[in-house]
Amino acid sequence: MALSHFDGKGDAHMVDVSEKAVTARLAVAEGFVRMAPETLALISSGEAKKGDVAGIARLAGIMGAKKTSDLIPLCHPLPITKVALEITPDEALPGLRIEATVKTSGQTGVEMEALTAVSTAALTVYDMVKAADKAMEITAIRLLLKDGGKSGRFEAQ
Amino acid sequence: MALSHFDGKGDAHMVDVSEKAVTARLAVAEGFVRMAPETLALISSGEAKKGDVAGIARLAGIMGAKKTSDLIPLCHPLPITKVALEITPDEALPGLRIEATVKTSGQTGVEMEALTAVSTAALTVYDMVKAADKAMEITAIRLLLKDGGKSGRFEAQ
Amino acid sequence: MALSHFDGKGDAHMVDVSEKAVTARLAVAEGFVRMAPETLALISSGEAKKGDVAGIARLAGIMGAKKTSDLIPLCHPLPITKVALEITPDEALPGLRIEATVKTSGQTGVEMEALTAVSTAALTVYDMVKAADKAMEITAIRLLLKDGGKSGRFEAQ
Amino acid sequence: MALSHFDGKGDAHMVDVSEKAVTARLAVAEGFVRMAPETLALISSGEAKKGDVAGIARLAGIMGAKKTSDLIPLCHPLPITKVALEITPDEALPGLRIEATVKTSGQTGVEMEALTAVSTAALTVYDMVKAADKAMEITAIRLLLKDGGKSGRFEAQ
Amino acid sequence: MALSHFDGKGDAHMVDVSEKAVTARLAVAEGFVRMAPETLALISSGEAKKGDVAGIARLAGIMGAKKTSDLIPLCHPLPITKVALEITPDEALPGLRIEATVKTSGQTGVEMEALTAVSTAALTVYDMVKAADKAMEITAIRLLLKDGGKSGRFEAQ
Amino acid sequence: MALSHFDGKGDAHMVDVSEKAVTARLAVAEGFVRMAPETLALISSGEAKKGDVAGIARLAGIMGAKKTSDLIPLCHPLPITKVALEITPDEALPGLRIEATVKTSGQTGVEMEALTAVSTAALTVYDMVKAADKAMEITAIRLLLKDGGKSGRFEAQ
Repeated sequence: MALSHFDGKGDAHMVDVSEKAVTARLAVAEGFVRMAPETLALISSGEAKKGDVAGIARLAGIMGAKKTSDLIPLCHPLPITKVALEITPDEALPGLRIEATVKTSGQTGVEMEALTAVSTAALTVYDMVKAADKAMEITAIRLLLKDGGKSGRFEAQ
Repeated sequence: MALSHFDGKGDAHMVDVSEKAVTARLAVAEGFVRMAPETLALISSGEAKKGDVAGIARLAGIMGAKKTSDLIPLCHPLPITKVALEITPDEALPGLRIEATVKTSGQTGVEMEALTAVSTAALTVYDMVKAADKAMEITAIRLLLKDGGKSGRFEAQ
Repeated sequence: MALSHFDGKGDAHMVDVSEKAVTARLAVAEGFVRMAPETLALISSGEAKKGDVAGIARLAGIMGAKKTSDLIPLCHPLPITKVALEITPDEALPGLRIEATVKTSGQTGVEMEALTAVSTAALTVYDMVKAADKAMEITAIRLLLKDGGKSGRFEAQ
Repeated sequence: MALSHFDGKGDAHMVDVSEKAVTARLAVAEGFVRMAPETLALISSGEAKKGDVAGIARLAGIMGAKKTSDLIPLCHPLPITKVALEITPDEALPGLRIEATVKTSGQTGVEMEALTAVSTAALTVYDMVKAADKAMEITAIRLLLKDGGKSGRFEAQ
Repeated sequence: MALSHFDGKGDAHMVDVSEKAVTARLAVAEGFVRMAPETLALISSGEAKKGDVAGIARLAGIMGAKKTSDLIPLCHPLPITKVALEITPDEALPGLRIEATVKTSGQTGVEMEALTAVSTAALTVYDMVKAADKAMEITAIRLLLKDGGKSGRFEAQ
Repeated sequence: MALSHFDGKGDAHMVDVSEKAVTARLAVAEGFVRMAPETLALISSGEAKKGDVAGIARLAGIMGAKKTSDLIPLCHPLPITKVALEITPDEALPGLRIEATVKTSGQTGVEMEALTAVSTAALTVYDMVKAADKAMEITAIRLLLKDGGKSGRFEAQ
């Protein structure tokens, strides 16, 4: 199998999607920030009364999704029509779970936008809490769902 | 313990570093892209003869580091003086290991720049290989080393 | 009434416009920079012989309109099809009046693009003249007209 | 008096600050968003239980300050060391008052950064509330205080 | 003949393309970096065993094409559907020849995107090799081919 | 001779300038846009009465200089302290001559900023005049002068 981002000589290019149909596209991605239990407690209490870590990370994720084609060299620019993030505490990890949903109607999918939204939100959580816990880990970022376009539906197992 | 990115009322702000000394700062971060063994084989053979996935991801990571303060809402803009990435196959994972080293002389550290470089490189790997393997996972992104500045040296365990 | 940028839980998101029709959209906004009469005289004479404050502000406004979705967190990226600014002296104020007209054919309106064009042009005027007059005021920025889309025509009174 | 952004021929340039000393610089700016009383009530209740308009606008203002030299053609890029915004309801207006404080140690002042922070926050308020009230006005944006540098202290009257 | 980027008063604006049809657009541009023969030898050997100047310049050109409307004040933002660059040694020059092909389906052409891709790639070559040869020249950047849209096909002679 | 942008393995990196002294740096670059004599006449008359091609290109060049480290992958971000462009008709070419001067006090030179300013201004001229003349050529972009830093003064011959 060949990688579509390289031509016959092995040179990277932005894949030609001119002939692809404009269809409704959807992608959902998730990721986690693992942290010490006290750090999670600090964030949770913070959200209640001292500062909204999850709210800021959610906004950063939305803005990050809009920068995807600027960050990822071979990504096509796309007019995103929806971005939403959900950030929820995960006591078992312990840490935060981040889920991003992105939609567009365009000629390519929005997997990279959803993954970039999750990554940017996770980095933002790290930034805001790093004074308390430098050993946090951003982990298990993956695509959960992709729909629309010729290659069809993908669901993570 | 309070989170430094929030003031007494819980409002987020960009922390005042005006009074901090300009010192040499170093940060090293790592992360992984886990994939199917055949995907890793495809990349490795690709690097030899058909297209340089790691080379493009390395470049994306360097450029990503320069966008850190644009991506992370409360990050200070910093004149980075060095960025280097190393991307190596990890047969045991299987997948790729990404390591980023960032330096500056400034008033705040470059942890976020190193973590953003790793994240951007990992997303770029995903983008270039996703036609072959949508189930890849970006994982275990963490700070390995931080040096310089008042809070002193941090080494991951 | 609920604010559309927040979901049921109060979390901010980029509103889903996937199902909205692609229609012709138009917005016109205005704003003012109030200044000392001598400052206005300086600009007006400058335009004639020493430097084109209004011309530079007009260009900054056009470029600012293109950055709207990068500046405003929950704004959708839009392929703008026209931007024009008019900057005229207003002796009564005294100061400059700025008017921006923006068009697109898209799934959401261009009010924010028109308002951002006016704001950026006004800030640019301030920047170029601030050595002479730091007490200038950017004022009365508002939407004059919006047309196209389901919510229909709006005209300021 | 000549405008410093134009040379002898009237051509615009970025003023040479190479010889200026690196000193601590501070600027404070303010601005307002005037709205219908019901709109202000909607935001205030929203902040309490349904969505944080002021929090998002504050963050947009901080990020906007970092984009100043990208937005304003002749502005020098500056390593900002602090940005903070305060957004408070003003029942008399009625509307919101926005105040931004910016610091750096550099060769030019941060007036434009403070004014850009206020403008961006105001535009963000408009964006989030425009579905309820298109007649809002962004008004009275001005510099309150500037300190540091050769031209000395400026205080608005 | 009038220049379309200026209105009747001579003020610059972004031309209104709202009424133009969305059609398939193609542009091809070329340019050269002239250098000392030893510099070309250094690059060519480098590509084989010590570093891939052409590969990095090609990637920079692709990313540069995506920034066109951000760089060129009156350019419309466009959803590019394909970018590819070819960089080949030209022993006769001596130096490198750069060719960029850009496609979109939109309301305006992609000439500027193709020319910006070539320029950015040429600047990147200069940057990577300047320690060895500061006298290099970026030269003969021109449009080779433009197709699609009302003004029809253009081919350089 | 080795290329400094590649490490021992041939991998590209952003060169470490942490140990270099902060000194005053200056660079001057030039370039040309060759066009049909009637095109030059159109621009020249335009400048007098119908629109300021050179003024807009000059501004685009200044803003382009500020984007250098965003465009050129391995360029260090630098706090530019001065940018000026001169654009003059060259009847013999025929066409326009563009000269850019950039200053900073930093740890690396500003050659790339000066060359990027010239390139961006040249592209902007092409954009504004392309409706009249698609056969224009951007040519002979080179470094004229570089001063400051360890590698010393360079003057083009």
